[in-house]
Amino acid sequence: MANPVLPSSGVLSPIGLDAVRLSPGFWGDRAALNREVTIDHCREWEEREGWIGNFRGERPRRGREFSDSEIYKLLEAMAWAGHPGLPALAETVAQAQEGDGYLNTRWSGSRYTDFEWGHELYCYGHLIQAGVARLRTHGEDLLTEVVVKAADHVCRRFMNGTETCGHPVIEMALVELYRTTGTERYLEMARRFVDRRGLPALADIPFGRGYYQDDVPVRQAQVFRGHVVRALYLASGVVDVAIETGDQELLKAVESQWERTVARRTHLTGGMGSRHADESYGEDYELPPDRAYNETCASIASVMLAHRLLLATGDVRYADLTERTLYNMLATGVALDGRSFFYANPLQVRVPAVPHDGVNHAAEGGLRSPWFDVSCCPNNIARTLASLPAYLAAGTGDGIVLHHFTPSEIRHGRLAVRVETGYPWTGSVRVRVLEDGAGRIGLRVPAWAADATLARVPVSAQDAPLPEGPVVRPVSPGYVHADGPWRAGDELRLELPMRPRWTFPDRRIDALRGSAAVERGPLVYCAESVADEPPLGDLTVRAEPPVERPAGDGAEGVVELEVAASLGGSGSKDGWPYGAADAPGDGGDVRLRLIPYHRWGNRGPATMRVWLPTR
Amino acid sequence: MANPVLPSSGVLSPIGLDAVRLSPGFWGDRAALNREVTIDHCREWEEREGWIGNFRGERPRRGREFSDSEIYKLLEAMAWAGHPGLPALAETVAQAQEGDGYLNTRWSGSRYTDFEWGHELYCYGHLIQAGVARLRTHGEDLLTEVVVKAADHVCRRFMNGTETCGHPVIEMALVELYRTTGTERYLEMARRFVDRRGLPALADIPFGRGYYQDDVPVRQAQVFRGHVVRALYLASGVVDVAIETGDQELLKAVESQWERTVARRTHLTGGMGSRHADESYGEDYELPPDRAYNETCASIASVMLAHRLLLATGDVRYADLTERTLYNMLATGVALDGRSFFYANPLQVRVPAVPHDGVNHAAEGGLRSPWFDVSCCPNNIARTLASLPAYLAAGTGDGIVLHHFTPSEIRHGRLAVRVETGYPWTGSVRVRVLEDGAGRIGLRVPAWAADATLARVPVSAQDAPLPEGPVVRPVSPGYVHADGPWRAGDELRLELPMRPRWTFPDRRIDALRGSAAVERGPLVYCAESVADEPPLGDLTVRAEPPVERPAGDGAEGVVELEVAASLGGSGSKDGWPYGAADAPGDGGDVRLRLIPYHRWGNRGPATMRVWLPTR
Repeated sequence: MANPVLPSSGVLSPIGLDAVRLSPGFWGDRAALNREVTIDHCREWEEREGWIGNFRGERPRRGREFSDSEIYKLLEAMAWAGHPGLPALAETVAQAQEGDGYLNTRWSGSRYTDFEWGHELYCYGHLIQAGVARLRTHGEDLLTEVVVKAADHVCRRFMNGTETCGHPVIEMALVELYRTTGTERYLEMARRFVDRRGLPALADIPFGRGYYQDDVPVRQAQVFRGHVVRALYLASGVVDVAIETGDQELLKAVESQWERTVARRTHLTGGMGSRHADESYGEDYELPPDRAYNETCASIASVMLAHRLLLATGDVRYADLTERTLYNMLATGVALDGRSFFYANPLQVRVPAVPHDGVNHAAEGGLRSPWFDVSCCPNNIARTLASLPAYLAAGTGDGIVLHHFTPSEIRHGRLAVRVETGYPWTGSVRVRVLEDGAGRIGLRVPAWAADATLARVPVSAQDAPLPEGPVVRPVSPGYVHADGPWRAGDELRLELPMRPRWTFPDRRIDALRGSAAVERGPLVYCAESVADEPPLGDLTVRAEPPVERPAGDGAEGVVELEVAASLGGSGSKDGWPYGAADAPGDGGDVRLRLIPYHRWGNRGPATMRVWLPTR
Repeated sequence: MANPVLPSSGVLSPIGLDAVRLSPGFWGDRAALNREVTIDHCREWEEREGWIGNFRGERPRRGREFSDSEIYKLLEAMAWAGHPGLPALAETVAQAQEGDGYLNTRWSGSRYTDFEWGHELYCYGHLIQAGVARLRTHGEDLLTEVVVKAADHVCRRFMNGTETCGHPVIEMALVELYRTTGTERYLEMARRFVDRRGLPALADIPFGRGYYQDDVPVRQAQVFRGHVVRALYLASGVVDVAIETGDQELLKAVESQWERTVARRTHLTGGMGSRHADESYGEDYELPPDRAYNETCASIASVMLAHRLLLATGDVRYADLTERTLYNMLATGVALDGRSFFYANPLQVRVPAVPHDGVNHAAEGGLRSPWFDVSCCPNNIARTLASLPAYLAAGTGDGIVLHHFTPSEIRHGRLAVRVETGYPWTGSVRVRVLEDGAGRIGLRVPAWAADATLARVPVSAQDAPLPEGPVVRPVSPGYVHADGPWRAGDELRLELPMRPRWTFPDRRIDALRGSAAVERGPLVYCAESVADEPPLGDLTVRAEPPVERPAGDGAEGVVELEVAASLGGSGSKDGWPYGAADAPGDGGDVRLRLIPYHRWGNRGPATMRVWLPTR
């Protein structure tokens, strides 16, 4: 089946990417842009930067020690998207593979001399994920040959011993290769990599072993910690190993770590990571809006993990976090043109970008960058958008469940439905049965959706006048279900209330004290100020109901908001910013425009803030 | 004259270290501990780590590329302190000098191949400062020979060209060598290094050229930015160049940069630096208490700069910031035992240290470390405490001015006085004239001291009954003066009000919103909780007048405080830390003990916070 995650058991079962056809709409548009623009954009940059040339033996070798992995992520994206450029790129990669399966353009000649920072197993992990995608969308070919040879090399070299890689990802890759090929040594190798971690397996470093989750064994950890992408890739692999080995204790450990991490180490956007120095979580309740790191890749890793936990348990919390992360992180990481990217995703930006020659390589201050020295994020976005349908729906015993609502057609088992919706701009979701069929249809009512309603409208009743018309019933957050049989034309109509709402932080989040944010549906909103005019530095809002407005740039359907604010009062503490209690700002009252966070950074250098100081 | 800073002109003039004799008291005790314990501690560690052995040619070379500079800072400390170990250490250093004056244990053989990160000129800078200290306390010897040879080498190699060093310090070192030797090429070399910076002179790096102040010429900069120690060492050298070349514009530029930096980029403790990733300032109003970096060395650099500006202008603001920084940063950087140190000085610590084998090499979580891989801070503390008298008082046209009050005897011109005080614990300062003399005596009334009074008490009136007794007059913050002539036994009695006060942050400091701190006199207070029992994570205080208490550990004279608080209520937002408006905490009411910030971290692993959330 064409799907990146195929566990052999679980409450929910994956359905094939080809079973979900995206139509124009929020995600359909983004998937199309990715297929048509972003994938080629990535390939062009990887060629230009010499990272592809490394595989042809061009010297001097260029790029960071892990640059091979970017080409592999891109190959995975190409595989899921059915991109015609895959065979040629795979052929280039194959040139660099050595006779025993070893493949790495940086460390050939000094193999396995730096497990802490060398990233060799990390690169194999991404290579294997690309191979898995190819096997599941196409079948065996040169790429999959390379991948199997590399995986066999890894198993020979590492099955016995105590070594593992400073950057996890090999674990989930090997389990997926096992799931596809049935070769049990891949699972066993993954299991051993998981078990070795934290014994410890790696050297101590200035960041501490927690940086690469080698401080304690996975089973004993209480929370995700250290480098966020490493932590979440590892946890994803741990879930995969737990599922395939039936290790309930291991699964529970990850669930409990996830729970504390979401409760204490996650930003409102679903982003994770509060420290720039080591791209790490930081401590419980350390959630600064300005220095939030929230790496785009970390959000993708978070979706990968939550998806695995959702399939395993069916617990709606995992889908809720996935929705938050998709709409506010994945959609933010790439610009509306598909060619520029955020690496970090802070919730407050105080100074507009100062681009050099029109380019802002740091991707700070409201301008995305077309590329990075470490360009994991663009390729990671490409492979995720290319496989997005995997996350939208799942199979149940006798039916389907829709986690996320976007215009699409879904076929699974004896069910074929069309989803029609303006979500996330409107809260009306219509699920129309396309052919006579049977099976239960489940719909997720998001955690934020109080007062939602569901109506079942048989095709026979669609023209009937009230009171013979459809019965509308209130539904609570969680999954709601409707059972078949179904006639073609039958409909489920879900109404999610799309009132903007003020959201306040837990008292323990010191960095957000005295401020509030606005959300509407699954979207987090923010104030964006181009060139910081008007200035957002000394802002106060009144938490009165926000007013809905059409988008300032005319984008169809997009909902913007307005709130009452006072802007740009002069600071009271002259010369020294601490002293007697402050007087209220003397800035004039204004109507402050809020836009969806994922749409910020498309208007040039700007300041921005999600959390708004309240009176 | 024995003083690290000897400008040839300025509103105030330095007085010799030997003109100020510290008696037992806040600073006298610390200076003695430094002389008797800390200097030897540093030498032992530098021997143990192999950094001294590098000069003997021991291989492999050990330590970071700039480790030579630590030995030079230590030599400077030894020179000011009159430490008998200096000649032997200088002899070791001299062994590594090459025939043309070049001296660097790391780059010998690949000289000047990395101006961005090589630190060669930085090392010379510290070497020259050690030599200047030796010349001013002892006169010529082997060390000063080495230094002059090195300085001449630098002038030959760099007088023409465009190169400079990624880490400033050479500038102020060369000016001081000029001041002592009269050799004008040292001044000219310093001037050129200053002028080259920002043209730019160095390569762009991922942190940006602002990291090493090479983004714009010094004259055009608006604020201190980038790596804090680099910025402040540079600015100190710029002031020195401006003074000796009579460049008023250059001096004004630094004054204006200082002003904005103090108003927007300085923590309550006087600490500077808000980012760990690049040890940099961060942006205006980016002042997080938990991730405050506030490197100990940066505070020393800040004192060096403020002292230069104070001498040049006589403006009390520079002395006010110096006082704040000395009491809350320098005094905090070293433990009460003189053998362990903080590198970063945050204003909030959420998690107690987890020491390994009793040592906490990161010096986080309330335990100082005896040493660091980068051990600039211990040596910097040592040289600063060894030359501390330089900062306490200055000469005026016909008298002296006392910037800081600590038990001491001061002789200058026709004045000899003894300062008797329990400051900073009490606000009574008695300045007693020791011999008949003349000249104006100035005393600084700190900015925080509203309602201070000054009494002049002639020796003749000391036994007189009221109303014939001394006249007490109110004095305002700034310098107050009393003119001679003086009779032995005459006294000035300054009374500074030592009421604890609540201090609130400027509205624009997002990270401190909704919280307040307590200060008393020059001291910032904090709550410290050993092993986080009771937990400080969910704390609310009432900003009612704090109550004074004797020190919990029995330390004589030390004043602690108590405030009303609610501690450890349960968080209201279960599972997801954002939602509807929060209820007040349900923790019980307690009396929360506050201790002087500089005394925290002497009781084992602990949590701590300066800024206390208010109701």
